Amino acid sequence: MTVSKTSPGNFFEDFRIGQTLPHAVPRTVTEGDVALHLALYGARFTFNCADPFAQSLGLPRAPIPDLLTFHIVVGKTVSDLSLNAIANLGYAEMRFHALVYPGDTLGSTSPVIGLKQNTGGASGIVYVHTVGLNQRGETVLDFIRWVMVSKRDTKSPAPDPVVPDVPEAVAADTLYVPDGLDAEGYDTSLSGARFLWDDYDVGERIDHVDGMTIEEADHALAARLYQNTARVHTDAVAAKASRHGRRLVYGGYVMSLARALSHNGLANAFKIAAVNGASHTAPAFAGHTVFAWTEVVDKAAMPGRADFGALRLRTMATFDHPCADFPGRTGPRSWHPAVLLDFDYWALMPRR
Amino acid sequence: MTVSKTSPGNFFEDFRIGQTLPHAVPRTVTEGDVALHLALYGARFTFNCADPFAQSLGLPRAPIPDLLTFHIVVGKTVSDLSLNAIANLGYAEMRFHALVYPGDTLGSTSPVIGLKQNTGGASGIVYVHTVGLNQRGETVLDFIRWVMVSKRDTKSPAPDPVVPDVPEAVAADTLYVPDGLDAEGYDTSLSGARFLWDDYDVGERIDHVDGMTIEEADHALAARLYQNTARVHTDAVAAKASRHGRRLVYGGYVMSLARALSHNGLANAFKIAAVNGASHTAPAFAGHTVFAWTEVVDKAAMPGRADFGALRLRTMATFDHPCADFPGRTGPRSWHPAVLLDFDYWALMPRR
Amino acid sequence: MTVSKTSPGNFFEDFRIGQTLPHAVPRTVTEGDVALHLALYGARFTFNCADPFAQSLGLPRAPIPDLLTFHIVVGKTVSDLSLNAIANLGYAEMRFHALVYPGDTLGSTSPVIGLKQNTGGASGIVYVHTVGLNQRGETVLDFIRWVMVSKRDTKSPAPDPVVPDVPEAVAADTLYVPDGLDAEGYDTSLSGARFLWDDYDVGERIDHVDGMTIEEADHALAARLYQNTARVHTDAVAAKASRHGRRLVYGGYVMSLARALSHNGLANAFKIAAVNGASHTAPAFAGHTVFAWTEVVDKAAMPGRADFGALRLRTMATFDHPCADFPGRTGPRSWHPAVLLDFDYWALMPRR
Repeated sequence: MTVSKTSPGNFFEDFRIGQTLPHAVPRTVTEGDVALHLALYGARFTFNCADPFAQSLGLPRAPIPDLLTFHIVVGKTVSDLSLNAIANLGYAEMRFHALVYPGDTLGSTSPVIGLKQNTGGASGIVYVHTVGLNQRGETVLDFIRWVMVSKRDTKSPAPDPVVPDVPEAVAADTLYVPDGLDAEGYDTSLSGARFLWDDYDVGERIDHVDGMTIEEADHALAARLYQNTARVHTDAVAAKASRHGRRLVYGGYVMSLARALSHNGLANAFKIAAVNGASHTAPAFAGHTVFAWTEVVDKAAMPGRADFGALRLRTMATFDHPCADFPGRTGPRSWHPAVLLDFDYWALMPRR
Repeated sequence: MTVSKTSPGNFFEDFRIGQTLPHAVPRTVTEGDVALHLALYGARFTFNCADPFAQSLGLPRAPIPDLLTFHIVVGKTVSDLSLNAIANLGYAEMRFHALVYPGDTLGSTSPVIGLKQNTGGASGIVYVHTVGLNQRGETVLDFIRWVMVSKRDTKSPAPDPVVPDVPEAVAADTLYVPDGLDAEGYDTSLSGARFLWDDYDVGERIDHVDGMTIEEADHALAARLYQNTARVHTDAVAAKASRHGRRLVYGGYVMSLARALSHNGLANAFKIAAVNGASHTAPAFAGHTVFAWTEVVDKAAMPGRADFGALRLRTMATFDHPCADFPGRTGPRSWHPAVLLDFDYWALMPRR
Repeated sequence: MTVSKTSPGNFFEDFRIGQTLPHAVPRTVTEGDVALHLALYGARFTFNCADPFAQSLGLPRAPIPDLLTFHIVVGKTVSDLSLNAIANLGYAEMRFHALVYPGDTLGSTSPVIGLKQNTGGASGIVYVHTVGLNQRGETVLDFIRWVMVSKRDTKSPAPDPVVPDVPEAVAADTLYVPDGLDAEGYDTSLSGARFLWDDYDVGERIDHVDGMTIEEADHALAARLYQNTARVHTDAVAAKASRHGRRLVYGGYVMSLARALSHNGLANAFKIAAVNGASHTAPAFAGHTVFAWTEVVDKAAMPGRADFGALRLRTMATFDHPCADFPGRTGPRSWHPAVLLDFDYWALMPRR
């Protein structure tokens, strides 16, 4: 008999501690990807839009948006890790390392660092440490992620449970600062706002005011661009048979919309340094208009740097609900029903 | 108290004669932007599509479409000028100067050149002279624009009225010819039509025949690509509460569709030299199929040039109404109900 | 009287044997086109995605997808050949020659090689041999195509019928291998599957499993990007008056979707060498979810090459019908009602 040539994806039994998933399809990032990023999200951070601005900060040209790097790296993992996923449970310890420029080629691998079968034996949680690499083998991004994956056979034996330590947040003094980056020449007349690191207070809340409506065509273009093969994003027939009965917007799409909307209020948070956590608290669908607000959770000076500091920001994205009333958590694991995303990250911002 | 970090945009009281609005977010134009321009409008002017063709006219490579330059320059002005606009009233004296190539970075500034409060005191008209610049500080585009802007407080005092002279059309002998451009080698077998400047008669009308349907996803991609932050284009919640109850297509989108459609009949009008005026006579919405026709209003030889001349063209764009019957003006300030756009411009065209 | 400047397209009477249609609007392909190709179809062949991977096979960088070359070449022919087409009847003897890279400029010409008036005299069949060329005059693609075209006047005389020989398939020993291509270094950990030429059996059937839903915005973006001026794709008003009463998806769109879906099962069929035939067996519309399956029809070693061989593949694309039951032909010229496309091609695949 001919062996099936089609991959059914990995089931919970297929993962082993210490195993490394070598994700296929490396991808050369181009100016075309960046233009589509602007067109899909309306991002306006000058750092990613204008070569001369990036050059004034010591860089060769404008790097691609941090979350575009994230989307491309995550997209590659789907066919190995989450084709049989029931839920994407979380991200932690996500650090952005080397900047990515058009022309760079991104690949990734995911060592399996944790496994825990669920009660009932129908599924289990897989923990991986995904590392995104450029063509020189430099890390561009790494993060811990945990996903609930179906078992092929509920009767197959459970592995010894291994649950990695997942810190609540990335420590500020471990944030990576890209080589050569120097914010001394940062020009706020070009970035769109005069507020700098010194002007933000812990506890301050910012309503980003604007909304952005998602079309079915938009999010499917994005999922395909990132080569994210999860059927629920782009296959209406499969989606109709799914729990929600319709296509689901890729969770990272909402992250990038929230980040783009945050320009109005955080125009100088020019770079994401790390993501402490990201919870997709409700499914996003085409037709939703996404709004966002942010709370400043923490501030940290950067060791040895007078030119910029870090802000720990918690951005909530909502659907069809403008954020003047700051809808957010209603309990330890519950949120206002309009909340789609609870996104906790460190951004770099110039100092006075 | 913490200062609000979110910009509410400028109100009529915030503008002063002589003030210059320094628009933020300079933008490096890329081949990705040009590909999206083709995909959104179906533009076919060989001048902007094929590097060897542009090289045969003395240029280093194909310049970006003139209206793409316009969209990017206008997009930057929205957050400073028209976030509180009630209506975009007009454009005049728009001249295209230095050609823009992928890799160029566009910025812009808008000196305020006129102010006139409206009767009733709820709003006023702001006149600006917007200048688009490349990374070398060369002007790529400039134009006069006037916008009706809300007042923050109807009781605030009116400024002394200043209304600039707005000429009815750009004088043909002031049209700018890009450095190095030489139409001697222009090959009509590559451009798609044999008709040249000499073949067009003043008063001639051309039905461009084809139609192009606008999807909600199309025009929102465009607005975001141009970083146009006017909420009525991309925020369905805000749009629902607006006068039209739905999202409005960015007016420039209709301009670019009309320009693209005009290739069928004006394939050799390879470059827009100036725009005399552009009136958005009715709102455009997703679902509209745009058609266009053009009248040749004037012809002008170009001083010292035997290789090309200028045609003054008036293009009407309609919705859901093919243009075999040439629907147009019905009075000094009234149009056939299917007309969306009355676009009066100078194009360069090779001579025999 | 002024001569009409708008092209009505050619009618059957306008074609002559030996005449060459010199298609206008050469087009420089860019990284933007490639990014849109990924975003529209979700293609994942590493050969077209990653410069270092292509370099490991002896090439300067990743070539553009073969079908993107096809779409751009075909797009140019519409205004000369098929503006008055009743049906696109077939393709044959399609060979891909020189690889195309971003920066190359594609043009095309179509010698007329056959003419046969239909019974009744209202239309006729035009056979052309379309040749796509790059800026160095090298052939990138050639194929025979036949199209049923309306007559301007049913009473005009019929030409002497000339019907060219159309072989059923491209002979394997005439497949073109791009200069410098060497599959020795092909790394299956990067391509996404371990199955190579040796592993496929003639008669083997592969269900590609995944589905991809077409939005109206998607296929219209594609048609415009390829400068395909057939009104039925992008003009809802014209489409409403047409036989189907709605917009038709460009047939090549379904080809590219089927090719992209085939990655799941044919990840190492990295290059299309030739197309034996392509039948659009039913019209595709927005809202369709496209699925695909493939039968291995033939295998051929390549003369003098130990590094790769050729597989003759027959891919069926369906709408709204997953392909686990392999829906296909039901007779010599009839297909399962869900079949949209019957696509017969030769692909190159590395050998062990």
